[in-house]
Amino acid sequence: MPQLDPDRLFPADRNSRDIARALFETIENLPIVSPHGHTDPRWFAENAPFPDPARLFVTPDHYVFRMLCSQGIRLEDLGVSALDGRPVETDGRAIWRRFAENYHLFRGTPSRLWLDHAFETVFGWTGRLSAETADHAYDHISACLAKPEFRPRALFERFNIEVLATTDSALDDLAWHQVLKDDGWSGRVITTYRPDAVLDPDTPGFAANVERFGELTGENTFTYDGYLAAHRKRRAYFRQFGATATDHGHPNARTENLDRADAARLYHKALKGTCAAEEADVFRGHMLTEMARMSLDDGMTLQIHAGSMRNHNPAVMRGFGPDKGFDIPRRTDFVAALKPLLTVVGMEPDLTIIVFTLDESVYARELAPLAGAYPALTLGPAWWFYDSPDGMRRYRDLTTETAGFYNTAGFNDDTRAFCSIPARHDVARRVDCAYLADLVTAGRLAEDEAFDVAQDLTYRLAKKAYSL
Amino acid sequence: MPQLDPDRLFPADRNSRDIARALFETIENLPIVSPHGHTDPRWFAENAPFPDPARLFVTPDHYVFRMLCSQGIRLEDLGVSALDGRPVETDGRAIWRRFAENYHLFRGTPSRLWLDHAFETVFGWTGRLSAETADHAYDHISACLAKPEFRPRALFERFNIEVLATTDSALDDLAWHQVLKDDGWSGRVITTYRPDAVLDPDTPGFAANVERFGELTGENTFTYDGYLAAHRKRRAYFRQFGATATDHGHPNARTENLDRADAARLYHKALKGTCAAEEADVFRGHMLTEMARMSLDDGMTLQIHAGSMRNHNPAVMRGFGPDKGFDIPRRTDFVAALKPLLTVVGMEPDLTIIVFTLDESVYARELAPLAGAYPALTLGPAWWFYDSPDGMRRYRDLTTETAGFYNTAGFNDDTRAFCSIPARHDVARRVDCAYLADLVTAGRLAEDEAFDVAQDLTYRLAKKAYSL
Amino acid sequence: MPQLDPDRLFPADRNSRDIARALFETIENLPIVSPHGHTDPRWFAENAPFPDPARLFVTPDHYVFRMLCSQGIRLEDLGVSALDGRPVETDGRAIWRRFAENYHLFRGTPSRLWLDHAFETVFGWTGRLSAETADHAYDHISACLAKPEFRPRALFERFNIEVLATTDSALDDLAWHQVLKDDGWSGRVITTYRPDAVLDPDTPGFAANVERFGELTGENTFTYDGYLAAHRKRRAYFRQFGATATDHGHPNARTENLDRADAARLYHKALKGTCAAEEADVFRGHMLTEMARMSLDDGMTLQIHAGSMRNHNPAVMRGFGPDKGFDIPRRTDFVAALKPLLTVVGMEPDLTIIVFTLDESVYARELAPLAGAYPALTLGPAWWFYDSPDGMRRYRDLTTETAGFYNTAGFNDDTRAFCSIPARHDVARRVDCAYLADLVTAGRLAEDEAFDVAQDLTYRLAKKAYSL
Repeated sequence: MPQLDPDRLFPADRNSRDIARALFETIENLPIVSPHGHTDPRWFAENAPFPDPARLFVTPDHYVFRMLCSQGIRLEDLGVSALDGRPVETDGRAIWRRFAENYHLFRGTPSRLWLDHAFETVFGWTGRLSAETADHAYDHISACLAKPEFRPRALFERFNIEVLATTDSALDDLAWHQVLKDDGWSGRVITTYRPDAVLDPDTPGFAANVERFGELTGENTFTYDGYLAAHRKRRAYFRQFGATATDHGHPNARTENLDRADAARLYHKALKGTCAAEEADVFRGHMLTEMARMSLDDGMTLQIHAGSMRNHNPAVMRGFGPDKGFDIPRRTDFVAALKPLLTVVGMEPDLTIIVFTLDESVYARELAPLAGAYPALTLGPAWWFYDSPDGMRRYRDLTTETAGFYNTAGFNDDTRAFCSIPARHDVARRVDCAYLADLVTAGRLAEDEAFDVAQDLTYRLAKKAYSL
Repeated sequence: MPQLDPDRLFPADRNSRDIARALFETIENLPIVSPHGHTDPRWFAENAPFPDPARLFVTPDHYVFRMLCSQGIRLEDLGVSALDGRPVETDGRAIWRRFAENYHLFRGTPSRLWLDHAFETVFGWTGRLSAETADHAYDHISACLAKPEFRPRALFERFNIEVLATTDSALDDLAWHQVLKDDGWSGRVITTYRPDAVLDPDTPGFAANVERFGELTGENTFTYDGYLAAHRKRRAYFRQFGATATDHGHPNARTENLDRADAARLYHKALKGTCAAEEADVFRGHMLTEMARMSLDDGMTLQIHAGSMRNHNPAVMRGFGPDKGFDIPRRTDFVAALKPLLTVVGMEPDLTIIVFTLDESVYARELAPLAGAYPALTLGPAWWFYDSPDGMRRYRDLTTETAGFYNTAGFNDDTRAFCSIPARHDVARRVDCAYLADLVTAGRLAEDEAFDVAQDLTYRLAKKAYSL
Repeated sequence: MPQLDPDRLFPADRNSRDIARALFETIENLPIVSPHGHTDPRWFAENAPFPDPARLFVTPDHYVFRMLCSQGIRLEDLGVSALDGRPVETDGRAIWRRFAENYHLFRGTPSRLWLDHAFETVFGWTGRLSAETADHAYDHISACLAKPEFRPRALFERFNIEVLATTDSALDDLAWHQVLKDDGWSGRVITTYRPDAVLDPDTPGFAANVERFGELTGENTFTYDGYLAAHRKRRAYFRQFGATATDHGHPNARTENLDRADAARLYHKALKGTCAAEEADVFRGHMLTEMARMSLDDGMTLQIHAGSMRNHNPAVMRGFGPDKGFDIPRRTDFVAALKPLLTVVGMEPDLTIIVFTLDESVYARELAPLAGAYPALTLGPAWWFYDSPDGMRRYRDLTTETAGFYNTAGFNDDTRAFCSIPARHDVARRVDCAYLADLVTAGRLAEDEAFDVAQDLTYRLAKKAYSL
């Protein structure tokens, strides 16, 4: 029995629902533009079958294993690989059963929507996952994964993805992107320049990273000027692999605009590993402004993902490493924080800086007023924990009145869970159609305009914001 | 004419309303589990009649007298007892009339829902309170209060309360609980361990309190080790009177994990009354971690109620004392604040730490992400000013997507207004059914699952979170 | 074809919509009470025709030009006058065309509602503005503006304005108000005492301002006592021109209550221009308390508009001056900030302090609890970026449960866009009726009471809060 309601996420009111459905019909089948995410380019380069269902849906998905962990299930029992040599479950079916027995934990969460959507639309399995159905689902999905039409490239094409951006370290050799480039496959998989490892003095191994950065670029990164030159060269290298954007994951939204001497001084302290926490923060902030200056030259869109306190749980960090579900959002200021950057480049009409927040209290108070005034500033979509029906709705409710639709960047799925990509875009499209329908019903937007805006939110704004 | 709409708090949409009503029918008559509140155990021990309507509904209810005060009615004219010898109204009927004349002030507030519910369902009075109906209501309720079926135990039974927890100071002798224990009455009234008076160096009389604490426990509380031992003993004593939880009311959510020497040093400063504000804050924070360690041993649930600036109004504090409607919520950080505690005990699957906030901006940003990852952490329900239809709904809207339902603790009425207990549970049950119905209508939750979750939210989660 | 839906902003649900419509019918035609705004008294004194459509709708409206600016349209191309001598567009039709071509940017914003409302109800132009219709609209509105019935006084009467307050600097000679006073016109246009220029040490030219203040009042403002006396005299002068309120635009809500010597010391530093930023903040905060003391004597309502970081963009500030769309809200604390003021005057039943915030996170957490307890404190309506359908709705949703309706101050249009006044009151009335209807449908408010509250929110509360 299908788990997916064909009218899911549409308004309860019949009139609004009819309008939402009509809007959705016009955008449901538009190609997916995925300008920011964390899929692995190797999948598409190698085009090998995905492993078993547990390793597709449970082990790599921090939304899934964090929820199971919150109820006392140990990460090692979910097959999350450990750094400290502890034994880890390797039996996919055993992992899957633990997941299935606890599927009720996901009631009311976006994970549940994504999972049901993937089971049903990607794999054609329409049961409800539970202890009883665990094996049936496992066998069904396993059988699919063995077939050629479930290999990465086939799914990419089935998902109707027009373009998919991965996010790669500035130190990455882009070897898998090179394979894709050399290959004749028509799928457009591009990279994104993510320089945190060579830009954040708090990164473990920063000095070694920067040395390697010098080797990769042939620049003398022992000097600040050489370091900037290395960025410029590496950005150009990434652009050869389709990159149209850079991405920066920072603990806050701080920006600075140091003079050259101060920046160089901090850079040398960073190389020596003697930056105080505050100095590292200043340097990161300053480098965002440098990145924006480079974007003025090379046209790359600048993405700032700010406000996560990474690795809140030291035991999990020691045992399993980063990205294990213990990154927690914090209160984040944008008004003072972005001022140095915006003072330098905020009025540039051809620059696109996309800001993402994990602090929803800033949507209406800070980000919409800023994006509704500065030409260079664009609002990124609801991010991470807010990539959800209510999160997306709050985003629209809290930003549209001040920033309108045209200072926003369309949708990002931002995922490493490949099979959830269609589900996430489906959710975003439905939530936006529901929002537009509610505006129409309330006489706040003409119906014909709503159809036009639906195209913008689904397709055009993302292509524009990322120059795709 | 009845003031209560039988469909109150259900969604406007007909389909959703039908689902909400169907859900509610299955949980409406479940017993009340009240694991945290401030009723007086003496009521049940003595089982004496409640005094007049004014002293039942107005004088002890800070929600009620603060609203009247906000419109310029003096607390003394409402019979609130003064500390400074000023004359106070003693005529119950006069107090009641002032209240009734101003009943319009409560339009749109939860107090109005609770009051109308109590008038109608507890006392069978179905008018609308006003200057005109004041005397009629007063006479009607007074007549009821004289009857045996309106005594505390009879109401307890009529309210279908399965268990009711009071909150008692660590220094309380639990004499009324002892009466209840010795008595043959079947009602389950348990205590809760609230050690603020012997844990917060800023409490007036802290040193004397701790000395008394030593006497009560036979431990030498002039030493830090003796002080910790006294807590252990006193917790055990409270458990003899049914306690399954401790409760901590702190100005913020700060936790610390000091080494023994630092903790002892601060403790001795606290005894001497020489703690700076920051040091008192550190000590309180450290003691939460100590309490959690003790909970690991004795299984008691740890409740943290954080974020109220107590006694904002010095004139009211001087004239009338604490708890007089002038406690005001403040912005509260949880991410950094809880880190020391969670680093020590956050991964313990058998420990339950329930966190309550008065800062709703942290629901989605901080508390849901934390509770959705750490096994030991559970979200307390919407608290105090948010114990209201909109407050409860925001709580679900802002926490469910990230924490799900199973990292939440069910409902607390948290009241000293005994007659409002059924009303408050009624509101919570209706709001939850409305929320679930909206999820069903939006295709976000299967209907059969909604019925199961309704049982959880009403009954099972509270019993589990408090080991009842 | 009319752009305005007659049921706009009413709930989608049919039952709720019917109730909202019925409520609205009873208040739709109530006179407009506009106790706080920024219209120019000269308009009514001179009663000259308004200039062309661009100079009526685009050039003076920071909501409009900031949105156009955010998409890269230069302020000079919109006719915004420059300080630095750069050439500025002077052709009204050219400005209007730029605006019309970009009218889609306003989809979903309150500006769109206000503009469509003014085009249709004030000027009888019912098209949709676009590149195609730009000239038609321009010609139509231009033709209207030439007619006597579109002069300021005629519109004032047509708008059914009972009273309109302007906001004037304490240094203003109120010459246009004098013309109005001497004139026989029946329209009630009053002033408001805005002393920021002589109260905020950070104001450019503060010392010169204070010297002028002394000349205007005949007081020796080189002494602190003379300075306070000058305020008292100037307030009395403003009251001769109808003022019933003072208004204070501060970067935060800080208040202080210094002793006389400390206040005088800071005052003299301010005159010398040697106040540190913190000292200037303290002085501003202290003066709010002094203003409140004066209000106790002269009965003027005290308005605090807190939380905007003015002139975020230094290039725009240099080029075009203040109020050019780059004032950005910041996080604002009220609990600690208002404590000194409330400790002095908070319990005064006859004083009205109206607080406005740009930080919505404080509505439920801070402002509603404060206003729901202190007699002197009243909540101002949703302000600036929140003067919008969703902003107003959040205001009600987040304040009513704790503060009720009777600790709120009714609506302010707070505008310098005269033709938007009816539109803004229309939006506020509709949003309030929708809110009340939703309460009725949910059984949270009796229907007959909703009709009474609708009168309060539209008319009575504003008159009471401002003693009009």
